[in-house]
Amino acid sequence: MLIFEKTEYLLRLEKIKEQMEIKGVDLLVLADPANMNYTTGYDGWSFYVPQVVLVVKDEAQPLWIGRGMDAAGATLTTFLKQENIQGYPDDYVQSITKHPMNYVADIIKQRGWADKNIGVEMDAYYFSARAFRELEKSLPNAVFTDATNLVNWVRLIKSHNEISIMKQAGKIAENVMQTALDNLSPGTRECDVVAKVYQAQISGTTEFGGDYPSIVPMMPTGVKTTAPHLTWTDDPYEDEQAVNLELAGCKNRYHCPIARTAYLGNNPSDKLSNIADVTVEGLNLTLDAIKPGMLCEDVELIWRNHIAKHGFEKESRIGYAMGLNYPPDWGEHTASLRPGDKTVLKPNMTFHMILGMWMDNYGFECSESFRITETGCETFANFPRKLFVKN
Amino acid sequence: MLIFEKTEYLLRLEKIKEQMEIKGVDLLVLADPANMNYTTGYDGWSFYVPQVVLVVKDEAQPLWIGRGMDAAGATLTTFLKQENIQGYPDDYVQSITKHPMNYVADIIKQRGWADKNIGVEMDAYYFSARAFRELEKSLPNAVFTDATNLVNWVRLIKSHNEISIMKQAGKIAENVMQTALDNLSPGTRECDVVAKVYQAQISGTTEFGGDYPSIVPMMPTGVKTTAPHLTWTDDPYEDEQAVNLELAGCKNRYHCPIARTAYLGNNPSDKLSNIADVTVEGLNLTLDAIKPGMLCEDVELIWRNHIAKHGFEKESRIGYAMGLNYPPDWGEHTASLRPGDKTVLKPNMTFHMILGMWMDNYGFECSESFRITETGCETFANFPRKLFVKN
Repeated sequence: MLIFEKTEYLLRLEKIKEQMEIKGVDLLVLADPANMNYTTGYDGWSFYVPQVVLVVKDEAQPLWIGRGMDAAGATLTTFLKQENIQGYPDDYVQSITKHPMNYVADIIKQRGWADKNIGVEMDAYYFSARAFRELEKSLPNAVFTDATNLVNWVRLIKSHNEISIMKQAGKIAENVMQTALDNLSPGTRECDVVAKVYQAQISGTTEFGGDYPSIVPMMPTGVKTTAPHLTWTDDPYEDEQAVNLELAGCKNRYHCPIARTAYLGNNPSDKLSNIADVTVEGLNLTLDAIKPGMLCEDVELIWRNHIAKHGFEKESRIGYAMGLNYPPDWGEHTASLRPGDKTVLKPNMTFHMILGMWMDNYGFECSESFRITETGCETFANFPRKLFVKN
Repeated sequence: MLIFEKTEYLLRLEKIKEQMEIKGVDLLVLADPANMNYTTGYDGWSFYVPQVVLVVKDEAQPLWIGRGMDAAGATLTTFLKQENIQGYPDDYVQSITKHPMNYVADIIKQRGWADKNIGVEMDAYYFSARAFRELEKSLPNAVFTDATNLVNWVRLIKSHNEISIMKQAGKIAENVMQTALDNLSPGTRECDVVAKVYQAQISGTTEFGGDYPSIVPMMPTGVKTTAPHLTWTDDPYEDEQAVNLELAGCKNRYHCPIARTAYLGNNPSDKLSNIADVTVEGLNLTLDAIKPGMLCEDVELIWRNHIAKHGFEKESRIGYAMGLNYPPDWGEHTASLRPGDKTVLKPNMTFHMILGMWMDNYGFECSESFRITETGCETFANFPRKLFVKN
């Protein structure tokens, strides 16, 4: 069930080890499920218990350490040899006397790595304060280095194989957005439209199925559009209201986020139509201008200058690197399209650029996920950019 | 958009403060989204950035501190007065120079709590090693106490209002399981059946819509049943194969998990039919025996004695407290139905008991979510307990 060839993972490990060398890290403890997947192929909904991948400078293969019952999943989804898959006994789970990180430390000791410089992902979602404390206590001779996002930065440039999967996610995203627009109507409950969207996300296309996106569908309307991360309710959509659609397609944990705005009714205000035109024009011209060699902040500046000409301004970040991920986020926490970000755009970096213009009591958003090409950029989904008026 | 009356939250806070008193904690920093919800009502998919609720011994209301753009969501979903909702500027997000926990520490200092005994959830999912380090650095005069699961233990006994919501989750769970059984058939892709299940989860019933469960639907078949946390693929279900169904209904973040086993084809083996009979009989008699006053480990013993009579044994944990939660888990990380757990069963504690019997190359599982009543227990869903043979 390995998604890519083993050689792809070995190449990734080479790049990661170069970064470890630069940072003086001998052993990397990866708790971020996306980084565990990236280095080994491991894919399972098991990140609710502590689990790690160890990348060791002088070892050809990483080690997967997780709950005993998940070792079979590691055997099925990774390229690792059996001795590099280590499951801890179930009495470590939610125990008050011991912690899975003590087991991880025991393996590190057994293999003679207890006095190494150990890189840990201090700010990863599934590396708790306790997990770090237990590692520190169990490995008093180790030196710990914060290696948050070390692997994430390697993930920034995708391989051709990864791009192929993201194009599939893009196809799914097109279906997903069309499904949302087809099912939105005044009187239909929010939950029922979101349910159809979920179905489209998971069913995918007739050619390939979908995976669960790392963020739930966001389809707020009315006052709820002021609070961007509230989920749906049982309320019906109403006539003469705008609806923000922040959705995604996902394939093998790779994402293509996509945002559009719909208007239910016949009479979108001139103000809304105007901000939609300005935003779409800005999206088009910003995408047209993107080229490898530019800095991330240059991209934002093009957009900012465009809206300034129309008398608008917007908070600074308009996009971020994304691709492989697990809940709760599809962003990669590396490059951002915002002032001050000096990351140089290179071919096969992948971003989600989301342009949202929020006024006092109305707003419009439109986004694209794209890769940098040799000469410009290419979106993963192909979907009209406009205000969708549905009457 | 507050789900319960304000009085319900105030009652919860009273119980939490009793526990804080016992542990000598003056100020509790809650980063677990379920605990943030439990104490304030806050509900949003914003836990991918650092956010906390502060419960202070001498303050009537908690403080919500999160990303600026989520403050509107806090206003809409909580009972908090406006001055107790504090949003941090967006340049704290994924910054390399500062961390949202520095902002949290600033508020703690401003309010004069910098030298208090501060309880933190060291092993909560969204409280990273870095988050704790930043708090420690910014508050050198504070004493930190590990308060992991302090609120979770208060959550163990549900109010009547919470039970009402969980009964709704139970109704949704019935629909969800029926949808899975209706759509399973040889030749249908796994993703397409899971897609229908998702739709049922979110759509809910005609009376009330559903919420996203904290764990994705698990519907493995064939070799994948040996790896319990792998998600679906594009492969079609096959004839003469068993399928494990680990699903849930969810309403307002409250869950009713439910597991059953289906067999596609005409000829389930005698061994499978036998283990199904033994398991269902064990589930029935264990549920019948449950009474308030028993210990959690007593429940497990009834089951263990039953299967021992039939020549089987099983690893020890057969259930756990559950209810309100967010991804990646619906379990509450408190009481478990396993040897050594001396928790005394009390009315309106809620559990998921999941009985899985895994042999070399076949297996059967069946589960119920239930509350302890004054005299016994009551399941949230009402769904037949048997091997579902679908030909």
